[in-house]
Amino acid sequence: MRIPDDVRARLASQTSQLWGEPGVIDLGIGQPQDALLPVEEFRRAMASAAVPRFQLQYGIERGDGLLRMALADALTPRYGVPVDAERMIISNGNSQAIDWCCATLAHPGDVVLVEDPTYFLARAIFADHGLRVIGLPTDDQGLLPDALEQALITHRPAFVYTIPTFANPTGTTTSADRRAAIVELIARHGSLLVADEVYHLLSYGAAPPPPYCAWLDSGVVVCLGTFSKILAPGLRLGWVQAAEPTLARLVGHGTLVSGGGLNPFAAPIVTAMLQDGTALAYLDRLRSIYAARVGVMDDALRDAFGPERAGGEVTWRTPEGGYFFWLQLPAGMDAAAIRPHAVARGAAFQPGATFSPDGGFGHCLRLSFAYYGEEDLARGVRIIAETVTEAITAAATGG
Amino acid sequence: MRIPDDVRARLASQTSQLWGEPGVIDLGIGQPQDALLPVEEFRRAMASAAVPRFQLQYGIERGDGLLRMALADALTPRYGVPVDAERMIISNGNSQAIDWCCATLAHPGDVVLVEDPTYFLARAIFADHGLRVIGLPTDDQGLLPDALEQALITHRPAFVYTIPTFANPTGTTTSADRRAAIVELIARHGSLLVADEVYHLLSYGAAPPPPYCAWLDSGVVVCLGTFSKILAPGLRLGWVQAAEPTLARLVGHGTLVSGGGLNPFAAPIVTAMLQDGTALAYLDRLRSIYAARVGVMDDALRDAFGPERAGGEVTWRTPEGGYFFWLQLPAGMDAAAIRPHAVARGAAFQPGATFSPDGGFGHCLRLSFAYYGEEDLARGVRIIAETVTEAITAAATGG
Repeated sequence: MRIPDDVRARLASQTSQLWGEPGVIDLGIGQPQDALLPVEEFRRAMASAAVPRFQLQYGIERGDGLLRMALADALTPRYGVPVDAERMIISNGNSQAIDWCCATLAHPGDVVLVEDPTYFLARAIFADHGLRVIGLPTDDQGLLPDALEQALITHRPAFVYTIPTFANPTGTTTSADRRAAIVELIARHGSLLVADEVYHLLSYGAAPPPPYCAWLDSGVVVCLGTFSKILAPGLRLGWVQAAEPTLARLVGHGTLVSGGGLNPFAAPIVTAMLQDGTALAYLDRLRSIYAARVGVMDDALRDAFGPERAGGEVTWRTPEGGYFFWLQLPAGMDAAAIRPHAVARGAAFQPGATFSPDGGFGHCLRLSFAYYGEEDLARGVRIIAETVTEAITAAATGG
Repeated sequence: MRIPDDVRARLASQTSQLWGEPGVIDLGIGQPQDALLPVEEFRRAMASAAVPRFQLQYGIERGDGLLRMALADALTPRYGVPVDAERMIISNGNSQAIDWCCATLAHPGDVVLVEDPTYFLARAIFADHGLRVIGLPTDDQGLLPDALEQALITHRPAFVYTIPTFANPTGTTTSADRRAAIVELIARHGSLLVADEVYHLLSYGAAPPPPYCAWLDSGVVVCLGTFSKILAPGLRLGWVQAAEPTLARLVGHGTLVSGGGLNPFAAPIVTAMLQDGTALAYLDRLRSIYAARVGVMDDALRDAFGPERAGGEVTWRTPEGGYFFWLQLPAGMDAAAIRPHAVARGAAFQPGATFSPDGGFGHCLRLSFAYYGEEDLARGVRIIAETVTEAITAAATGG
């Protein structure tokens, strides 16, 4: 049976995950821009790849020791804390690692505590495992210890899921003092902390506080890192740091026991790119590109909403890392209702309520600067700002 | 912090999943031999790889359409039935695909029906999801329809898990008539059939009956295929065939929605190896090597246990595909108790009870010819046969 030509054409176009609508600058997309992907770096790495036999064999359950060693060497100076390759396992990226935490560290019906707002697609993974998600309040230093402690007592969660640095969607970074307090509370109440540190290495100013792996000895933290935002999401390659016995629980996942370690195939290629400096050089290039985009977006927002970022009707903080601006419109505004009007004019965003387990934050919206270049970012912000301003005016005049 | 040299040496040795004990020919290992892995084929494919941008981006949830098209083109003549690239999704191999079926097609507490004996590591995955595993009797044509129907009525399983062709551990192939009857029964009783077709393409004689994807229109079959046994397990790359709406349920898995399709990175490399014939040429080379090993092992078994394979004390059938010989010792013998004596002499096997949800088949054992070359296979069989023969003699004389 030969596949018909129209089916062939359709299949040939089905390669990447697609979020956008054609002709719309969708600042809701939290993916890296195609044009920024390190195609040349990978072409060079693969052209000279050695192809060791273990790359093709069932991998060791904890993941290639050579990759873990290269990661420890590369991360230690960047994290500012010693990274222990023997308390690390290789993952298929953070989405799979979250899935894996749900499977091995929780039971159906258990509670997971999350920041409200949080990464909305993590909630889809929690739902797969029958976990109940409860949101916790935050301030500009991260999770609020008092509210966290009350929830630990009330809900006895399987774990707390946090995005501690340059968080999705708010850009908030949990302060070092707050981190220490959170670890202490979680240890005292016998729970675990799953820290999704996907944006940690994407800093554009001062270095953020140490990642939670600095508290590995507490025995209660599980730290998830990934190459998705710093090298290539298509790799499906990441790392998980935890102390025993939590590490052993994770490695006991049935798919690891059966299929061996995750992603032996990509490991040696990335190991080589870490060892020869290619990966970190690319990361630093990304950081400088994103830092410039933050400036462009900040300027465009100030042009549109006025210089009084904190005092105006629409407020935001300039992100110091990560992927996102988080805008707060006046209370009572509904960003989801505004979105179709923006789309009609050619731009889109993620409404805030998407990120809230309770549907809160309806007056907020998330803009990403990862997927578009500077010109599109400025144009997208202008369109969104016009639409938002009209909606605010209409609300004020009862229109 | 520099990693100490002794830790470096330890990490550098942690690359592949290890099952064997040093100095022991372990015919229990169900992995391909390192020496057979297609290192040169991959070196060539990677040296000339194009690195399309989508290889590095979040992949489309169903998996790269170009790989699905190349798979459909390659599988259609080999399967002898039309393979529909639009009713296929790309997996991380069959272990992950089983995990995925558990997550999306079952709920904790549900029953899964399996052949008794079955692949023991699948049971670890079912356990991760809180599923109850119930074994069904088989004969040399596969699952027994009457017993299957009774179990479908009694247990109302989420799905039936089967290894229909050159099964692990018995080597049994379900006949075409039996397949049709099984599909009809499962459809009538509102369940699903998850067919793990990992060994289908590894045939050494007549072509096996069509894989279960021939019954895709029934809406009740989910067929799992993988490159693990025919190209390289380290790829963590496979394919799942199903009809809507089951396909949509699988694609709704939270990790796919969040992280995109599985393994965009390996996909274009394997697509190229399918398109230029490298992958199928390698498969055919493997088939001829394994066919020769079957002959060597069969000869060694006959030399040890006598020519009357079916009438002797130890019986087996010569496998027509797959990885395994399944030996039956006299009733009452305990293969697990014999194993340490074989190990002490330098050879090992998988005791039959490992494969039984109820701990049955204690008098059976599984030998694989995948991991060792002909000389080691003959030597391993001789050691095991000596140990088994001594145990039979001792039992007969009450020793």
